[in-house]
Amino acid sequence: MKTNVTLGIDVGGTNTAFGFVDINGKCLKESSLPTKANNSAADLFARLNPEIDKLYDTISNRCVLKGVGIGAPNANYYRGTVENPPNLRWGIINVVEIIKQYYDVPAAITNDANASAIGEMLFGAAKGMKNFIVITLGTGLGSGVVVDGKLVYGSDGFAGEIGHTVYDPNGRLCGCGRKGCLETYASATGIKRTVMDLLANSNHDSPLRNVSFNDLDSKMIYSAALAGDQLSKEAFEFTGKVLGLKLADAVAVTSPEAIILFGGLALAGNMIIEPTKKSMEENLFHVFQNKVKILQSGLPEGNSAVLGASALIWNEIIKTDKISI
Amino acid sequence: MKTNVTLGIDVGGTNTAFGFVDINGKCLKESSLPTKANNSAADLFARLNPEIDKLYDTISNRCVLKGVGIGAPNANYYRGTVENPPNLRWGIINVVEIIKQYYDVPAAITNDANASAIGEMLFGAAKGMKNFIVITLGTGLGSGVVVDGKLVYGSDGFAGEIGHTVYDPNGRLCGCGRKGCLETYASATGIKRTVMDLLANSNHDSPLRNVSFNDLDSKMIYSAALAGDQLSKEAFEFTGKVLGLKLADAVAVTSPEAIILFGGLALAGNMIIEPTKKSMEENLFHVFQNKVKILQSGLPEGNSAVLGASALIWNEIIKTDKISI
Repeated sequence: MKTNVTLGIDVGGTNTAFGFVDINGKCLKESSLPTKANNSAADLFARLNPEIDKLYDTISNRCVLKGVGIGAPNANYYRGTVENPPNLRWGIINVVEIIKQYYDVPAAITNDANASAIGEMLFGAAKGMKNFIVITLGTGLGSGVVVDGKLVYGSDGFAGEIGHTVYDPNGRLCGCGRKGCLETYASATGIKRTVMDLLANSNHDSPLRNVSFNDLDSKMIYSAALAGDQLSKEAFEFTGKVLGLKLADAVAVTSPEAIILFGGLALAGNMIIEPTKKSMEENLFHVFQNKVKILQSGLPEGNSAVLGASALIWNEIIKTDKISI
Repeated sequence: MKTNVTLGIDVGGTNTAFGFVDINGKCLKESSLPTKANNSAADLFARLNPEIDKLYDTISNRCVLKGVGIGAPNANYYRGTVENPPNLRWGIINVVEIIKQYYDVPAAITNDANASAIGEMLFGAAKGMKNFIVITLGTGLGSGVVVDGKLVYGSDGFAGEIGHTVYDPNGRLCGCGRKGCLETYASATGIKRTVMDLLANSNHDSPLRNVSFNDLDSKMIYSAALAGDQLSKEAFEFTGKVLGLKLADAVAVTSPEAIILFGGLALAGNMIIEPTKKSMEENLFHVFQNKVKILQSGLPEGNSAVLGASALIWNEIIKTDKISI
């Protein structure tokens, strides 16, 4: 009998990754190509389709395609659209319609954080959980909120923007035009800004005094902290303090069993989890105290985005066909 | 044919109200008795039961009891319990089990804010909405969050504590032991505290300079504001500013279609809605701007709590019997 697979496509600002994933979250084949952010969505999918076909040819003797899931910036699950993504010159475009021209199977789209949340639920750290939140700590802070086993899309399909809850109304300028959004503190970019702030306001010696803002990344801050750099440790402490405070607010709304940290900055493990957990507990309303786990992503680092996109459509198929995994 | 009714019971710190409500939200009969906060839950229900029977006798020739819904402080929907309510000496007690000793119909319990949310969905301002939040502005600030037509209870049954999200970590001491919780600013008590703060820090003349903290209530502040008192107006402005900021955070999590204000302070109508709306819009992430309505409760003031409790169990019956209203 052939193995059922879904195609997961993760559209990023630089590269678009795609792969075929079975119902157990095993990625059988994957590849990627440049997104070419200045070109149209139609151009991307016209280039993507033959590459996908080529990849599918290598497994089609033993696999059947059951659906296509797409993770993309500013994607709207309800409408199937991508709407004015900040880093792609696409405007508003119905990606699910484009996909349906190529593949005669169910297709769905959502943003990468929501796709990650469903990925964690089906294949990762949230397996078996009904109420949890996934926080992606990348260039920005994305989030996917799951309530009673279902991703929360809200009235307009854009729910789960915890990165744009406000930590400090007089704080750091955010890419969204407002001030003090959580993602200006808790993200790979946020911790870089915190390092700059500490370099400005403290006299600690630090190897990071030799690195420019543009050259700095969260991995370097993590390495420096591991090597004992006080300033880098403080940057993690402060990032966790801010993140924990705002997570406590989010817990008060949906009462999740766990919060799962995903993405570049989450690779720092306990360096980020411990101060986040401490600050969250300090700021939690007492009925929630000592109940909410903070976990690291359970998805493999390399192809987590493809797994998430694939999980999005697997989740639809599971609901429709009433199968369990 | 007899009319199906449910019994709604609202347990308050002072009085317990109860009434029989049909599927259209019409309260056919209602009454109340003193809760006697220092006595046990068993005592309350032993006194309540004959009163309910007496009331039911007046309509039993034309009505059939289909279920019992209870609204009570610190109630847990999953477990059927009330757990250490701050203003009742009950400890942890399974109220649904007690109710089932008296009535052989489905029964459910939740806190009053959640009951209000279901009341608004079935009978009030949220009729037909799938995603909304109800904020009760009483002595404290309660909230009920509805996602995709279902009340959010979360992993432990205590979701929806927006009153205990933090506005200012160094702010006002809250009854929960922490500092700066939203309800210390946005509630009937919160606006009293704001008036005291303005009396302390401004030189405005105000009729409220003649009123003690204990004598002051939100209705007096509203009346003074209506009569042109600058200080009272400022108190509403500030309350709306704080509430709007934290509502913007909540919107970013669940993307509701509307936020419905309920309870004593909400009776101030546009005096509280306008500054709240202004502040919320200023603090909303752009994808949510100009989309979220702020509405006043659509439940009648007098028996809204009984209607909410009744709606809780009507909602269960509607789901089970697949009927629509």
